Amino acid sequence: MVAPDELTLTSVANRRVKDLVRLRTRRARDEYGVTLVEGHDELRLALRAGVVPRTLYWAPGLVTPARRGVVDELADAGVPVVAVSDAVFAKIAYRESPDGLLAVAPAPGRPLGELTLRPDALVLVCEGIEKPGNLGAMLRTAEAFGVDAVVAASPVTDFGNPNVVRASKGTVFSVPVAAAPSAEVLGWLRAHDLAVVVTTPQGDAALAATDLTGPTAVVVGAESTGVTDLWLEQADARVVIPMRGRVNSLNAAAAAALALYEAQRQRG
Amino acid sequence: MVAPDELTLTSVANRRVKDLVRLRTRRARDEYGVTLVEGHDELRLALRAGVVPRTLYWAPGLVTPARRGVVDELADAGVPVVAVSDAVFAKIAYRESPDGLLAVAPAPGRPLGELTLRPDALVLVCEGIEKPGNLGAMLRTAEAFGVDAVVAASPVTDFGNPNVVRASKGTVFSVPVAAAPSAEVLGWLRAHDLAVVVTTPQGDAALAATDLTGPTAVVVGAESTGVTDLWLEQADARVVIPMRGRVNSLNAAAAAALALYEAQRQRG
Repeated sequence: MVAPDELTLTSVANRRVKDLVRLRTRRARDEYGVTLVEGHDELRLALRAGVVPRTLYWAPGLVTPARRGVVDELADAGVPVVAVSDAVFAKIAYRESPDGLLAVAPAPGRPLGELTLRPDALVLVCEGIEKPGNLGAMLRTAEAFGVDAVVAASPVTDFGNPNVVRASKGTVFSVPVAAAPSAEVLGWLRAHDLAVVVTTPQGDAALAATDLTGPTAVVVGAESTGVTDLWLEQADARVVIPMRGRVNSLNAAAAAALALYEAQRQRG
Repeated sequence: MVAPDELTLTSVANRRVKDLVRLRTRRARDEYGVTLVEGHDELRLALRAGVVPRTLYWAPGLVTPARRGVVDELADAGVPVVAVSDAVFAKIAYRESPDGLLAVAPAPGRPLGELTLRPDALVLVCEGIEKPGNLGAMLRTAEAFGVDAVVAASPVTDFGNPNVVRASKGTVFSVPVAAAPSAEVLGWLRAHDLAVVVTTPQGDAALAATDLTGPTAVVVGAESTGVTDLWLEQADARVVIPMRGRVNSLNAAAAAALALYEAQRQRG
């Protein structure tokens, strides 16, 4: 249990407050190997996925009694818990309506070489995704379809981006994820004998007519430009999702969902 | 052709500027039956979909020469074109990096009764969707799969929301759309003999095992709460998308994409 009124951080000019604010930048997150998990529900999802926060910051003045449990639990589990003033919390929170809970947690992700694959592996490769909401949606979809891993190839937005953490509903911590340059990802896929199936409006095979039952990596490209030439050239299959409209381009997260759905449908 | 230097609106205190800013609220958009289309690429997509802007506001100081063409085209087509100062544009723009082009256009949507359905109709019903990005993604997907219409049931976010317009990549203007309370939408679907197929984690039928070849309405619910009881009770089928993960909930736009994909796959 923690005493609710012992505020240990009350000055917004404190060095630690500045460090926490800096964690909103990718550079600082990479430097320290951490991410931010803000808000009660998000924190619960992360904890359920096995995350052990490095530190919990909480504002006793903002946390409702019903949500105090998570503070006590973490304190009891030995996680450093820091009570801060409402003013400090307003400074370190990145949400518009902060609920008084913010954890610094280890950044999601591991080296490519530490991912383990089942014999009939299904991997989602996302190249150059820009929007946190899309990356988060892909992680939820990947988790739902039970992929072995999600690999960010030459990512623009990192898995530790707080908006990715939020949009992923905690799945960024439960699905095995890794990030690496595209060429390195391709080499890793080859080394593990995965078929490289690239989704692209310029594809020459229909998704439903492509065999996705063997070890497979489904590759989706950036929102605005699609996959880069490297993937188009090296692909074992370039699949197009049959469409009847005129815009001829699905949202990247929708394309990923359809390809994973089709793979699991074929696998039965 | 328009003369580039005749600024007709230079004061940010102008009544018209205030009216334009007000159009960011749903209330004002509903009142005037209009929406905002900002930025060159978005405007081009809307024009390609057949939109005739009521007025084009442009800032000669911000529009690059390569993008001047659209101003001339609209002026030649008889659309009122208003040149504004950079300061005024900064005020009326809702994007972070405005490119000097903003059109007021008729709001997308028509009355339910004016939607036309093919004999083997496929309709997407979205109930209570909150996030403009999700509604926009669903419109793109719906367009890609050639649905007859997208119907917003008891919508939280309106089709005319500028962020929906943007996320939809112009498809909000090319796909037939309508909005109405859920009960009214249900009555309309019944009157047209469409099977009501609700996607829900609590479903009792697998998506791929459900016949979607007849006239069908696919129903997806709000991001946080799913479909309301009305839809669950009145559904002809409650389908679940087979998932292997633990989170047991796909992003609403992903669920819509999978159901439409499956319907078109079955229809061949």
